[in-house]
Amino acid sequence: MSKRRVSFLRARIRDVPNFPKEGILFKDITPLLADVEAFRVCIELMAEPLEPEAIDAVVGIESRGFMFGAALADKLGVGFIPVRKPGKLPAATYRVEYDLEYGSDAIEIHQDALSRDDRVVVVDDLIATGGTALATKELVQRCGAEVAAFVFLINLVDLDGIARLDPSRVITILDY
Amino acid sequence: MSKRRVSFLRARIRDVPNFPKEGILFKDITPLLADVEAFRVCIELMAEPLEPEAIDAVVGIESRGFMFGAALADKLGVGFIPVRKPGKLPAATYRVEYDLEYGSDAIEIHQDALSRDDRVVVVDDLIATGGTALATKELVQRCGAEVAAFVFLINLVDLDGIARLDPSRVITILDY
Repeated sequence: MSKRRVSFLRARIRDVPNFPKEGILFKDITPLLADVEAFRVCIELMAEPLEPEAIDAVVGIESRGFMFGAALADKLGVGFIPVRKPGKLPAATYRVEYDLEYGSDAIEIHQDALSRDDRVVVVDDLIATGGTALATKELVQRCGAEVAAFVFLINLVDLDGIARLDPSRVITILDY
Repeated sequence: MSKRRVSFLRARIRDVPNFPKEGILFKDITPLLADVEAFRVCIELMAEPLEPEAIDAVVGIESRGFMFGAALADKLGVGFIPVRKPGKLPAATYRVEYDLEYGSDAIEIHQDALSRDDRVVVVDDLIATGGTALATKELVQRCGAEVAAFVFLINLVDLDGIARLDPSRVITILDY
């Protein structure tokens, strides 16, 4: 991975203090999205390590994962599958609940979204504690498919979410 | 616009009865997203009428508009700007409220997302009554920019949302 391309992306992530609450320094990806060259570099860096792999689909997590996931799927020449919050997908779904700091949340996938033995890439903009990613892996497995790799633009290293995805293959572009 | 390409897309929209409530026949776009050729044709059909235009950015409406919007922005070689539900964008925003069948909702844009006099394309998967699209137009105008065109994959003709966007330029791919 070229350090120059990574620096180019890093310069397009904006720190927003005290969002979503006091004391949190939020990593805002909208300057990257607003720069088409940066977006293209980002998708290239996500796709390159996956090109030798046999991938059947890209699964994107609502809703920032939709922007990167749809573009990555196009780049890899495979279909895009959305994982959504409850009540958003119209046909029959599988649902997995996962814990948040306070309370819990859930995500869903269409039951017919994947075929048995499909190998998929799961994409989101950011990995923090890894709860959503782990729940997405479970959804993929409920479909009889498997996660070949996870891809995240941003990895919040101190929260060590990647450890929870072990032994999955995980690709991250920017570590903080 | 080639009728053959439109039919190819139409065959990948699934009718789901009684979603989100009894009596509604929901147009499910997930089979189209799952077929990379269909997704590419969709983005081509969205981009072609815009290619003669001077466009500065694509604005996508959360969250299905993110998938089409990010890909269309890439195709047109311009940046992507997300319009999101309240509380999701981290920096200073403009907010516009709009009426729903029962109650109201709101959407936001970053105040620095667009430059004065930018000409933008607003994208969403579907236009129904046009309330969200109209609110997005207002957000774009609050930034000092203007909507050069709206693009929707699906137009629910009976609801006549397009009339509310008049005299804006509106591109739709599939009419129902």
